[in-house]
Amino acid sequence: MGDSPEESPSVGGEVSSLVEQAKELQETASSLVSRTSREEDALRQRVALLDSHINSVRSSLRSSKNLDKFEEELIRARYLLSEGDAAAFLPNKSHGSFLRMFLGPINVKANRKDVQLKVKEEYNNFRDRTAVLFLCLPSLLLMLRSWIWDGCLPALPVQLYQAWLLYLYTGLALRENILRVNGSDIRPWWIKHHYCAMAMALISLTWEIQRGPDCAQKQVRGVQLFLKWAIMQGVVMMLQNRYQRQRLYTRIALGKARRMDVVWGETAGVAGQLLLLCPILFVLQGFEAYVGFLLLKTAGFGSDWQVITCGVLLIIMAVGNFANTVQTLVTKSRVKAKIKRDKSRQELHQGSDDKSL
Amino acid sequence: MGDSPEESPSVGGEVSSLVEQAKELQETASSLVSRTSREEDALRQRVALLDSHINSVRSSLRSSKNLDKFEEELIRARYLLSEGDAAAFLPNKSHGSFLRMFLGPINVKANRKDVQLKVKEEYNNFRDRTAVLFLCLPSLLLMLRSWIWDGCLPALPVQLYQAWLLYLYTGLALRENILRVNGSDIRPWWIKHHYCAMAMALISLTWEIQRGPDCAQKQVRGVQLFLKWAIMQGVVMMLQNRYQRQRLYTRIALGKARRMDVVWGETAGVAGQLLLLCPILFVLQGFEAYVGFLLLKTAGFGSDWQVITCGVLLIIMAVGNFANTVQTLVTKSRVKAKIKRDKSRQELHQGSDDKSL
Repeated sequence: MGDSPEESPSVGGEVSSLVEQAKELQETASSLVSRTSREEDALRQRVALLDSHINSVRSSLRSSKNLDKFEEELIRARYLLSEGDAAAFLPNKSHGSFLRMFLGPINVKANRKDVQLKVKEEYNNFRDRTAVLFLCLPSLLLMLRSWIWDGCLPALPVQLYQAWLLYLYTGLALRENILRVNGSDIRPWWIKHHYCAMAMALISLTWEIQRGPDCAQKQVRGVQLFLKWAIMQGVVMMLQNRYQRQRLYTRIALGKARRMDVVWGETAGVAGQLLLLCPILFVLQGFEAYVGFLLLKTAGFGSDWQVITCGVLLIIMAVGNFANTVQTLVTKSRVKAKIKRDKSRQELHQGSDDKSL
Repeated sequence: MGDSPEESPSVGGEVSSLVEQAKELQETASSLVSRTSREEDALRQRVALLDSHINSVRSSLRSSKNLDKFEEELIRARYLLSEGDAAAFLPNKSHGSFLRMFLGPINVKANRKDVQLKVKEEYNNFRDRTAVLFLCLPSLLLMLRSWIWDGCLPALPVQLYQAWLLYLYTGLALRENILRVNGSDIRPWWIKHHYCAMAMALISLTWEIQRGPDCAQKQVRGVQLFLKWAIMQGVVMMLQNRYQRQRLYTRIALGKARRMDVVWGETAGVAGQLLLLCPILFVLQGFEAYVGFLLLKTAGFGSDWQVITCGVLLIIMAVGNFANTVQTLVTKSRVKAKIKRDKSRQELHQGSDDKSL
């Protein structure tokens, strides 16, 4: 067509080969995507069928007694499905309204077990990083208060801290919902607890911070007790992270060797740490409820609705945390008792087997 | 072993068959996952190679003149890669620090083009729903103010509205980042604009709302102008949504017929709406800057830092919105001019071809 005729032929050939390649790749991609989704759908149906079959046999066993051995095998079959690559094809857990509210209908389920474990590890790293800040920020505020601010906290640093808390709890709630979708057995209460904490952080942002000559006295109860509680929470978060990380590493390590035994053995190595963690947790929960009651008491002298709501939220969180810690302990001790019982029964049976020889 | 011997054999057989099935499914899942990820990796490499090849040929063409025809073909080849199923295998866009901050390292890229388009459609639905609230909530506040509250807004309803704004802008920023990862060509400014709006909503929560006998006067400038601006914003959001939804539907419809022509033709059907939208957008941006300046002016009379920061943020957003609207219009008119030029050239060439017969 008259535009640089000496260049055109070779360039033209190259360009049309590129267009051809693009078409070919597009077709390859289409067929790969449709074949993969066909195969995955088929596998998904088989996994769902087997899963419901296992559950129905388990519930029929539950009505007849003394079938522990079979039930244990079924639990192991179920565990095989949920801990390996087949986990990606188990029926999807609903994403829940919190994730839909913030992210829309996007899928956050990882389709490989190793990616799911990586997500969990990153969540632990996030908790580690925040635990340090959780300890440092309120300590800094309290130190500056007595050194520089003459016992009277200024509004801006406290509000920055509250905004950080709001971000932190939103991030935790989002990440925990994502973990749940990826098959984590996180207790629903801990997610609800973070919703309460989000509400409290949001409300505390609208909380008018007392200024003026007698502010040191007015502030002393609410804000400062809250900050002291936050420091304690930071220490506990660090201990909890240490404990849960070791549990996860045990799980990954055992998973590589013999994935199925993990469900019974995972708490064995860290029982000592739990003995240290529990009393501290209970003290923290008591202190949380105490701060809540103090806020309600100051509310008696005509203070804002924010103080009352924060007090109620703190008490709800303390009670819920307490109930869930106790439930976790009860479950753990039941599992331990079952392992002991099974072991002694096995020894008994092995004994009788020996005799029958 | 002595426990209900008449039931055991059949149940035992069923249970061990279930365990076998679980093992088999687990192996099938493993091999499917590893085969699929092998094939996907291979395809990903080929797509990345072709993509970089197309780009290098394009940039070498750019140095020599008069090769429009080849460049257009290359753009079409690139478009073929990015609009079909091959899009899932293009090199991943970075998730960006905002998504990492809130969600961690989870993958939010949909692996099928139809899912990506569904995400976009849900985003439009979300914007529709929020546009209605964007219009209604501030209208309600202003109406109640003159009917019930004697010209003086109480703190709680305004703070609830501000908390809703904070949620809304966080949700929009998260969703737009997810859209970007899924290959949307959303301008980076609009996401940054929502970060500014998030900051403003957060700051406005800490904003002390004037009460007392002369509050009607003190409130008149800041809060009320802001609410009026919000009502206007609601109307504009509705118009924008209508416009962008029609663009998307045109795109999907054309994509089904002849996907490649979409890039040139997509704005043809809605040019009339753009003529209505643009002046309204400019008026809104002017009004936004005006509210910002008014806030800065009231800040002169010793008000809080929040008022100054919100004023500055409003002005930044107004200027950024204006600059980006103008840029979009310039790009659109350039594309139109190019189409016209190409058409007239084609007619010219067809004419000369006819003569040569």
